[in-house]
Amino acid sequence: MKTLQVELGDRSYPIYIGSGLLQQADLLLQHIPGQQVLVVSNETVAPIYLDQVQESLRDLQQDAVILPDGEQFKTLDTCNLIFDALLKKHFNRTVTLIALGGGVVGDITGFAAACYQRGVHFIQIPTTLLAQVDSSVGGKTGVNHPLGKNMIGAFYQPRCVIADTATLDTLDDRQLSAGIAEVIKYGLICDLDFFAWLERNIDKLLAREHDALSHAIEVSCRIKAEIVAADERESGQRALLNLGHTFGHAVETGTGYGSWLHGEAIAVGMLMAADLSARHGWLNENDLQRIRALLLRARLPVAAPEQISTREFLDLMAVDKKVLTGKLRLVLMKSMGHSVVTDQFDHKLLLDMLEQFPRQPNAVQVSA
Amino acid sequence: MKTLQVELGDRSYPIYIGSGLLQQADLLLQHIPGQQVLVVSNETVAPIYLDQVQESLRDLQQDAVILPDGEQFKTLDTCNLIFDALLKKHFNRTVTLIALGGGVVGDITGFAAACYQRGVHFIQIPTTLLAQVDSSVGGKTGVNHPLGKNMIGAFYQPRCVIADTATLDTLDDRQLSAGIAEVIKYGLICDLDFFAWLERNIDKLLAREHDALSHAIEVSCRIKAEIVAADERESGQRALLNLGHTFGHAVETGTGYGSWLHGEAIAVGMLMAADLSARHGWLNENDLQRIRALLLRARLPVAAPEQISTREFLDLMAVDKKVLTGKLRLVLMKSMGHSVVTDQFDHKLLLDMLEQFPRQPNAVQVSA
Repeated sequence: MKTLQVELGDRSYPIYIGSGLLQQADLLLQHIPGQQVLVVSNETVAPIYLDQVQESLRDLQQDAVILPDGEQFKTLDTCNLIFDALLKKHFNRTVTLIALGGGVVGDITGFAAACYQRGVHFIQIPTTLLAQVDSSVGGKTGVNHPLGKNMIGAFYQPRCVIADTATLDTLDDRQLSAGIAEVIKYGLICDLDFFAWLERNIDKLLAREHDALSHAIEVSCRIKAEIVAADERESGQRALLNLGHTFGHAVETGTGYGSWLHGEAIAVGMLMAADLSARHGWLNENDLQRIRALLLRARLPVAAPEQISTREFLDLMAVDKKVLTGKLRLVLMKSMGHSVVTDQFDHKLLLDMLEQFPRQPNAVQVSA
Repeated sequence: MKTLQVELGDRSYPIYIGSGLLQQADLLLQHIPGQQVLVVSNETVAPIYLDQVQESLRDLQQDAVILPDGEQFKTLDTCNLIFDALLKKHFNRTVTLIALGGGVVGDITGFAAACYQRGVHFIQIPTTLLAQVDSSVGGKTGVNHPLGKNMIGAFYQPRCVIADTATLDTLDDRQLSAGIAEVIKYGLICDLDFFAWLERNIDKLLAREHDALSHAIEVSCRIKAEIVAADERESGQRALLNLGHTFGHAVETGTGYGSWLHGEAIAVGMLMAADLSARHGWLNENDLQRIRALLLRARLPVAAPEQISTREFLDLMAVDKKVLTGKLRLVLMKSMGHSVVTDQFDHKLLLDMLEQFPRQPNAVQVSA
């Protein structure tokens, strides 16, 4: 087991990474300060792992809430199901909420924990690769609004994160690839060596080799933790983590939440950011092809959805949080493995890229 | 004008108290860091004061949301009206939300500010006495849930509070009395001299004499600010501010939000706390009569609603946030002007008090 400490002063917490961690009840129990626990999971994950987790908690007063599965349920209404369960059980301020599932479960549960009685304890057990490398670091919690993604939320840190790589054995292929998109992102932000390691090891990740997964999770979390520790409230450098997200959020919103997975949208978004960077001369054609090739090998989409026109992209991007006082800021690549947050780009080139970027009617395949 | 600084480190802020402050545009403008402002008000207050406030903001990009008036609308759904307005206008993270109204408007708007894009700027312009003495200090924001009051919320501090006593001229009599209930509370918590001052000046407050109101607001805010500064997250002494609230919340929940005003429920709740304190021998009969007499002179209810039985009181109190790990904690008076938070009370005396406390079918009168 590897332990990574996220340094945030009195809100610091450990991330445990390894195979079979869900069997270790003590790992979980040492981070529960009270006697009351509510486990929040979803329809897909609960049948596989809920019993195991509840067995660890058998000496505590506990209950579970099973949410519907999917980004389209990341809403205030779903959050209310958690509040209902907490209040029906008369759970008080000493309760600990445990998020058992992917990023959606983690984001909703974290937000519920931030708001219930103005803040209760929170633990993350992410069961998707995307959640393990992304949602487990940074304290971003929240829900979507019909007019924009993640528009309602809080910065709220968990007491610990337990990333059990064994849970990835049951993840479907499409979800695994979506997680790899975020892993690739960390290479593109600031670590060209890690990007090269991914080019060499992508097949091992797709084959779910635990050592390779463990390494990828650890490096991703470490990079993210360093960026977050320097800028917890996202006033500056933290925005780097949004590489691919301004375009990606537009894809998710424009197609309706749920048809594209977050990681898939981010994959295309990164390629759009790379394309725009290349048009500025910051990347060369070879760089662009390396990124495109790695995404393809990871079974990720490299074309945008046909139904989103250039005009719609611009409209959807204008609502994105990265727009500061009306000025569009983007995360672009100054060179391979070195991204920056900037509003210094050529709007004509942005329009060209949006016009010319490949579109496809069914860029992602909905899994059975 | 009086200025009271609430000391909370990097979240410190000023409270301005005086007559005619809404006319002073600069007072407001100096606390707005960006170019975007959303004013949130309600149907009752907006027709009287919204134009004045929007006139002060005329050089900024601004919009207004008018909420329905009443505690029964202090819900997540109402909060969503604010998110809708913010997103329709494409307002970003630099927006400032201004709450123009009573405690409900302040609590909802503060919570919306805490959650919108994980936190934007927030200013309070309380227009009821209750909001001026209570909601403007302490950073408690939030909404109700059908199963409990203030169960969903955040600790979130405003950038400033502008308490214009001139706005109390248009407050209806019942609302004024409800505010006085909270003022009396501060005397009972820790300031017997202030309680005595209220006994001498209650008629001036009811006649809305600005100097008397200004003094009462200043003393109340100062006492609250001192308690909050020592315990921002309510781990200990801050619970003193809940004097009367455990019983009062039961009254509000048991009658359905909206029929009793918060201050009216707190008035009865304080008298119930005093009654229970007297049964322990901590107050004498004379103390009890002084409290009862002052509440009556302030035109506040001194009987509980007939429909809430002892059994229902106990059920409703069990969900109250003051219950820590199953043990009921109450704010009781050890002597006049000296309250404590304690679980050291005789449950038999609590049952006796709930059984014997006067009930009345129409303890509050719904105003026309």
